[in-house]
Amino acid sequence: MRYIYFVGTAGSGKSSLIYAFKEWLTLQGLDSVIINLDPGVENIPYEPDVDIRDWVRVDDVMEEYGLGPNGAQIVAADLMAVNAKDLAESVEKFRTNYVLVDTPGQIELFAFRQSSEIIMDELGKEDACLVFLADPNLCKSPSGFVSSVMLAATVHFRFSVPFFTVLSKADLLKEEEMEAISEWSESPDALYAALNDKIDTRALLGIELFKALESIGAYKKVVPASAMEPSGLEDIYDMVQQAFEGGEDLSTD
Amino acid sequence: MRYIYFVGTAGSGKSSLIYAFKEWLTLQGLDSVIINLDPGVENIPYEPDVDIRDWVRVDDVMEEYGLGPNGAQIVAADLMAVNAKDLAESVEKFRTNYVLVDTPGQIELFAFRQSSEIIMDELGKEDACLVFLADPNLCKSPSGFVSSVMLAATVHFRFSVPFFTVLSKADLLKEEEMEAISEWSESPDALYAALNDKIDTRALLGIELFKALESIGAYKKVVPASAMEPSGLEDIYDMVQQAFEGGEDLSTD
Repeated sequence: MRYIYFVGTAGSGKSSLIYAFKEWLTLQGLDSVIINLDPGVENIPYEPDVDIRDWVRVDDVMEEYGLGPNGAQIVAADLMAVNAKDLAESVEKFRTNYVLVDTPGQIELFAFRQSSEIIMDELGKEDACLVFLADPNLCKSPSGFVSSVMLAATVHFRFSVPFFTVLSKADLLKEEEMEAISEWSESPDALYAALNDKIDTRALLGIELFKALESIGAYKKVVPASAMEPSGLEDIYDMVQQAFEGGEDLSTD
Repeated sequence: MRYIYFVGTAGSGKSSLIYAFKEWLTLQGLDSVIINLDPGVENIPYEPDVDIRDWVRVDDVMEEYGLGPNGAQIVAADLMAVNAKDLAESVEKFRTNYVLVDTPGQIELFAFRQSSEIIMDELGKEDACLVFLADPNLCKSPSGFVSSVMLAATVHFRFSVPFFTVLSKADLLKEEEMEAISEWSESPDALYAALNDKIDTRALLGIELFKALESIGAYKKVVPASAMEPSGLEDIYDMVQQAFEGGEDLSTD
């Protein structure tokens, strides 16, 4: 079984894209299951096969520990680690090609707390990759685009698994916005020009850093995807395949 | 009036450090006020002079919009922008030296959504600086330390104001942990050695990026601080002074 973690800031469209991706896989004759790792989510567009909320729920934590939503989210994220073994056992019962993992709404609860590492280790890191969902609203401005690339690089560094970035909810972008983002992602010169146009000399700091991001491959041609249209799902699949074994296809057709 | 924004991941000790810093300023004969910008906080150790919860509260948003804690936090963060003008007017009534700004618990709600920019613009960016609180639990491991530096750089790039990093809750660290972090922050060689020791070759990617962080000054000797002890508060003050005017002291004594 291969694990694909979908990670992104709140509102970047993780759950919708996972659902669309699962549907797409099914159409290709590939079986998959979905794990929900967000203990605070209320509405998800799919029926998770394994759900962390069977063990930990943010609203229960709020009540039991007398905490507000902030504190309860942290406690719930940390409590997930306690249930990592049980969670892994539930997942292992499935015989499937792909396990799609929906991570907590707030990216820091997954990216910068220890329970995510514990869960990833328990599920098995060898066969895992991570899809970072870039938020289209952040990527619309040149400085926001760089922030997104830097955040992606930070998350990348945190987890030692194959990693790639998808521009999520691409349907929300106007054609000229999509073109601009695409241009920034392919031409450093275009991005530098856009940055200098808009922000003060402090941007120069960022440009240097950004050149480093480019040199290590965190900066790549953008891959747009949309759960709404849907679009970009095959691109995601191709990248996943590439990550796992240089492109060998598991598909049955 | 000078604005000092305290930014960090949930649990990094923003509120406690702000309170300790305010007390320290008072002892130096410097007046300050505190703005709470976290619409979801339940308990804060201080009495805020201006409080975003007078306009927006996460629990109200949960009820009114029928949202769970995840969704309500995002909506509340975005709604803050609507009240930016009123908030600024409330703050302007004070005649004070420093305005200490406590930001939302989850860093992404402040760092990667637009309302924070709108509020910062409304309050005035010319006289603002940003203190990034590094989480001691994250910084304990070499790869976590690099993640923290990268996250700081990402936030730095997002806001065009003077910026510095403080190692928060330093009292939680054992002496040998503190020494290790201190060494990593001063000697790239020590950090590279520690990284290669612990994680696989993928770390090399991070090291290259990290060298860039060093070259742009995002990587600096660590400044520990503790609200508990208290310690490091004068160091924070010195950095703030440096940021605002190259060290000229406002203090009355």
